[in-house]
Amino acid sequence: MESKSYMVQMNGNGVHSNSVHSFNINGDIYSAKMKIHKKRWNIRASEMSKNTLNPIRAIVDGMKLSPNPDKAMIALSIGDPTVFGNLPTDEKVLQAMKDAMDSHKYNGYAPSVGYQKSREAVANFYCSPEAPLEADDVILTSGCSQAIELAISVLCNPGNNILVPCPGFSLYKTLAVSLGIEIKHYNLLPEKSWEIDLQNLESLIDEKTACLVVNNPSNPCGSVYSKEHLQDILAVASRHCIPILADEIYGDMVFPEHTFYSMAPLTNDVPILSCGGLAKRWLVPGWRMGWILIHDRNQAFGQEIREGLVKLSQRILGACTIVQGALEAILNSTPQEFYQDTIGFLKSNSEICFSALSSIPGLNPVRPSGAMYLMVGIEMENFPEFENDVDFTEHLVTEQSVFCLPATAYPNGECGNPLYPNYFRIVVTVPEDMMVEACSRIREFCQLHYRPCNQESNDLDQ
Amino acid sequence: MESKSYMVQMNGNGVHSNSVHSFNINGDIYSAKMKIHKKRWNIRASEMSKNTLNPIRAIVDGMKLSPNPDKAMIALSIGDPTVFGNLPTDEKVLQAMKDAMDSHKYNGYAPSVGYQKSREAVANFYCSPEAPLEADDVILTSGCSQAIELAISVLCNPGNNILVPCPGFSLYKTLAVSLGIEIKHYNLLPEKSWEIDLQNLESLIDEKTACLVVNNPSNPCGSVYSKEHLQDILAVASRHCIPILADEIYGDMVFPEHTFYSMAPLTNDVPILSCGGLAKRWLVPGWRMGWILIHDRNQAFGQEIREGLVKLSQRILGACTIVQGALEAILNSTPQEFYQDTIGFLKSNSEICFSALSSIPGLNPVRPSGAMYLMVGIEMENFPEFENDVDFTEHLVTEQSVFCLPATAYPNGECGNPLYPNYFRIVVTVPEDMMVEACSRIREFCQLHYRPCNQESNDLDQ
Repeated sequence: MESKSYMVQMNGNGVHSNSVHSFNINGDIYSAKMKIHKKRWNIRASEMSKNTLNPIRAIVDGMKLSPNPDKAMIALSIGDPTVFGNLPTDEKVLQAMKDAMDSHKYNGYAPSVGYQKSREAVANFYCSPEAPLEADDVILTSGCSQAIELAISVLCNPGNNILVPCPGFSLYKTLAVSLGIEIKHYNLLPEKSWEIDLQNLESLIDEKTACLVVNNPSNPCGSVYSKEHLQDILAVASRHCIPILADEIYGDMVFPEHTFYSMAPLTNDVPILSCGGLAKRWLVPGWRMGWILIHDRNQAFGQEIREGLVKLSQRILGACTIVQGALEAILNSTPQEFYQDTIGFLKSNSEICFSALSSIPGLNPVRPSGAMYLMVGIEMENFPEFENDVDFTEHLVTEQSVFCLPATAYPNGECGNPLYPNYFRIVVTVPEDMMVEACSRIREFCQLHYRPCNQESNDLDQ
Repeated sequence: MESKSYMVQMNGNGVHSNSVHSFNINGDIYSAKMKIHKKRWNIRASEMSKNTLNPIRAIVDGMKLSPNPDKAMIALSIGDPTVFGNLPTDEKVLQAMKDAMDSHKYNGYAPSVGYQKSREAVANFYCSPEAPLEADDVILTSGCSQAIELAISVLCNPGNNILVPCPGFSLYKTLAVSLGIEIKHYNLLPEKSWEIDLQNLESLIDEKTACLVVNNPSNPCGSVYSKEHLQDILAVASRHCIPILADEIYGDMVFPEHTFYSMAPLTNDVPILSCGGLAKRWLVPGWRMGWILIHDRNQAFGQEIREGLVKLSQRILGACTIVQGALEAILNSTPQEFYQDTIGFLKSNSEICFSALSSIPGLNPVRPSGAMYLMVGIEMENFPEFENDVDFTEHLVTEQSVFCLPATAYPNGECGNPLYPNYFRIVVTVPEDMMVEACSRIREFCQLHYRPCNQESNDLDQ
């Protein structure tokens, strides 16, 4: 190749060869080396980006949401406890951040897995005699989302499958599908407070199953599993030697009469990656401070999974160093009353909501035990004007300016969406007066559209 | 399947079938459905995690680094301007963060691409008549690393290749290889202030080339390209219709007699994703605040690339909201003197280093024009005791307790590592007295080991 070929000037449409020995075939230019040079710009987004699908966005963006202009909008759809300002984080948390800044010690790069001191603080906070933790067992991440991403990425290859709850948080699917990992949904049972259908779960396991995702307490169900149920789940994992990704971001966000059991202390043989973060309990989801707790058992994860997590963490490094610097103080100085107040509010609000909706014919709310959510079943046969949950919640916006996230199923009946057919999810973090008003409007809406069908005619229809 | 199969108790080694119809073949248990159930825990780290390689770690971890106990260690290896405390960020930057916290407005989730207001602030800051930017052209990310990850991820599929500089920043390779994207290294020319060997660059392009990565100013070279050279690079991209990933994280970190030209204003037809962030110019790399500026041209990226970036951003969400909330004030309130002081220090320190090393027989430093680095060539033939740059820098630690990052090549001669054969990189952010002391020790080391060979004997050896 002659260097003078670099003197060729651009001609504006980008049609050039890099070789002086070139010829034109059917309008395309080939060099003598038969390298094909593109004639035009043809930039396509990658398959991975096209396969990164957010089901909630897909559903909500497709909805016709035109609020009633006479009524102020009440959004019961946003899983962010901070949006209404009624649930601020604690002053101690903010002070810890300011102290971290004033120390001038946390502006540089941290190790990609986080400062040793911050990892140690997390280890100490979550350590228990049955599931001891040291600093090296903690990987700090950019939010619990990255914790889940790293956990899935280290355990699964393309072609593997992971078992995820239905209804469940959509991110598991979003991440897995983009990585070429198959999703298998196991059913939760609303009539049993959203416990896992263990028989269904076990039937899904095959030789390609790389991981079982358990989300407890649950988004969107607000359920909190008993120790016995968690042991039953662990027994399934143990029988099939499937490691568990425990999404425990709502851990300890449970109502007083219930107890949260982390999975790791309940097993001697099932290795667990437990994902958590500051987002929910400390009410600062935007700060993007998450973590993975590595609970190995009998070296089943071994050095390989640990090293894999460290390597993956080097891709984009981890959490903001100011938050990392504040982490020890946040964990250790936040007063107990802060947690109690948050939980007290969530319980009170969910009780208000549950009571109000329980008395509305046609709705079947499921009483939550924790987290920030409440699921409501719709007796679709008694609302004949509406086709499904999407249709129902769309009209609820149009008439009453109340928006709840619908739980649609895909046309093929497979539960491929974040929620559940003919349910809707209510976020219970809104201020109490808004919750009361919203429930009152939902009642008005249902009373207007409820058409009870008797069992016989219903049977005939089927 | 009968539900009583769930009554099976664990027997401690995890050997179970989920079916009552099972039989044993050679110690493995198969169900009647021929599902294979694993007998033992066999968890392997994913291929992706194994393919996520950090070449700097691989080199440094393999080195024998035993400092001389009589001399305090001076690390000239760490590309973090904050480690020595001599380059603090500006008080206005810290105040902006505190104001963001005190507003209580930035604790919740931001959109995955960042707050609109913060994106607008970045757009306004980097906007120019030749390359206009609006808020929608900006994607905020968790550090410039995530910006680079998203840019590569949206432009490339497995099997594609990207062109990256050699010597160059190792992250491009780390990210690409883990995604199944091939790396092709184009050469930089030390004798031409590390300009790109354009002929070599163009020879690497084939039909699988999805992206050209240009890092200007350069890590590790400290070079700053002229407008003319950038136009020549753009002409190559234009001829072959290859989009550019411009890593401009060191933009405006250039010495007074030089000018930084962003690539986007220099082209009418080459679409560019420009990656940047707060890390270097504002001296807060740990805060993980980065961005992609989308400079489309004639809709070559189009909606597809924009939507792909938005989708990919939803995987882990973006930057810490406190930093996002402070971003507008950080960009607009940081006094000009802060930038000037930083650059003045870097220039002064690099001059001290360059002058000192220039007069040492056997070393060939390349004068930098910006960024925070200076590359030094070693005349290996005149240091016969040492095999290569790794050996040289190891002994520099052992004898003088000065650590510089070596630039090794892989055994096959391909430039597969972050740097360059028989060069070493010096970070010029260390305090002046340490720089002076380090240069003096390097001189002592070289004087002790320098064995000038004359040209003739050298020719005979070859």
